Amino acid sequence: MKYKRLKEYFEENDKFAKKNDIKLLEVEEGYAKTAVRINDGYLNTAGVVHGGAIFTLADVAFAAASNSHGSLALAINVSISFLRAARSGTLYATAREIDRNKKLASYRVDVTDEKDRIIAIFQGMVYIKTGTMR
Amino acid sequence: MKYKRLKEYFEENDKFAKKNDIKLLEVEEGYAKTAVRINDGYLNTAGVVHGGAIFTLADVAFAAASNSHGSLALAINVSISFLRAARSGTLYATAREIDRNKKLASYRVDVTDEKDRIIAIFQGMVYIKTGTMR
Amino acid sequence: MKYKRLKEYFEENDKFAKKNDIKLLEVEEGYAKTAVRINDGYLNTAGVVHGGAIFTLADVAFAAASNSHGSLALAINVSISFLRAARSGTLYATAREIDRNKKLASYRVDVTDEKDRIIAIFQGMVYIKTGTMR
Amino acid sequence: MKYKRLKEYFEENDKFAKKNDIKLLEVEEGYAKTAVRINDGYLNTAGVVHGGAIFTLADVAFAAASNSHGSLALAINVSISFLRAARSGTLYATAREIDRNKKLASYRVDVTDEKDRIIAIFQGMVYIKTGTMR
Repeated sequence: MKYKRLKEYFEENDKFAKKNDIKLLEVEEGYAKTAVRINDGYLNTAGVVHGGAIFTLADVAFAAASNSHGSLALAINVSISFLRAARSGTLYATAREIDRNKKLASYRVDVTDEKDRIIAIFQGMVYIKTGTMR
Repeated sequence: MKYKRLKEYFEENDKFAKKNDIKLLEVEEGYAKTAVRINDGYLNTAGVVHGGAIFTLADVAFAAASNSHGSLALAINVSISFLRAARSGTLYATAREIDRNKKLASYRVDVTDEKDRIIAIFQGMVYIKTGTMR
Repeated sequence: MKYKRLKEYFEENDKFAKKNDIKLLEVEEGYAKTAVRINDGYLNTAGVVHGGAIFTLADVAFAAASNSHGSLALAINVSISFLRAARSGTLYATAREIDRNKKLASYRVDVTDEKDRIIAIFQGMVYIKTGTMR
Repeated sequence: MKYKRLKEYFEENDKFAKKNDIKLLEVEEGYAKTAVRINDGYLNTAGVVHGGAIFTLADVAFAAASNSHGSLALAINVSISFLRAARSGTLYATAREIDRNKKLASYRVDVTDEKDRIIAIFQGMVYIKTGTMR
């Protein structure tokens, strides 16, 4: 129930995700999955999906997973490796919590395509504020 | 002259930058500067500028600087640290080449606000393809 | 058999690992595991295991896994997050290949303690030279 | 005066730096410089300076710079890019503070050789504990 609320909260309030049609498919404690359907608007000058689009897809999953406990979590650091170019179809990002203490938490995110090939890997850390998210 | 062409090439062909109103202000050899004017569409659920928007702004500067030599350069790795939340105004990203050999090149990008405060720092590497960009 | 040779090759030729008593426990295709027994010589000024020691432990596993295919692989980029301080006992690093093409390959490494708690997570990329390693 | 004390404190208490003959040359507010003289004990299986040795050199500069304000600062995240192989001579690492707030601070570190060529670039973040360092 509370994850359903969190999903709706993201759908409503993550304006940059909304602007770029990134969907939050699932969110549970320490876990989230996003998707985006690629069209020409997501490409870069090389004709492949833009690093910024791939990062944003992963970042929304990371944000949902890291805020899934109810406290406000702010991204402080992310490393992303781009492993394979994507051109079309739907891309997915799956975020999983690796560790969490009172002030810091870490996540790994995999970005995959429809054939489950790895497009990018992402490792991110958040700082947890004492207030609640909503 | 050739940098003017590169700037126009990016403006025309970087579709994700165009979709998100990211402007390429300057590009020279091993250097580029981008800007974006923030409005509500760039915010995340915490009401501050989305990590994906900040990354994309920096990534476009990184792409322009790394493609400024004429060979096609593809991002393979980026690390970004988010130092300060931004809420409004114009954000800038400035990319500078640190090193470049035949196959790999490295860049540092600073994201700053209108008061020249650092919003994010970014370190990125590209793989250089043998073909030319255009 | 060839992995036994690779293990011996590392034990003989990785001088910095030898100097710091890092053991290569296992190496297989795209996989390696290392260990180090902590004593006072591995600590930093805060009295916990030095980031340099944790990185080196992970880096040796990463090097063995990325060189396990027989071609010379050179580290070009690594991101490491330190999740929990360690003070004593044995630390382990386990490197797993995520993706590999002709020129680039990516690995994730977990550093854990004797109780299997995560001490650090590491994401690294190598550039593959055309020559062979040995 | 207090930086002289900090320098001596590091020389005495950074056991892993001492074990690997890493010297802290300078430390000031938000700044530090380290050096190491390369010999065969620092090499990896490819016959070049080990990533772990380069990381450790940079990490000690990062630790000194981030602890220079008197509060205990713990590394939470580092990204390092290896730009050029080094084989001999002395290597230097110079850490500079980019930003610092009450709980988090960020640094960039350059690793250079005797000819001032860039060997590696490093971007790191610390978490600041409320207690003092000494």
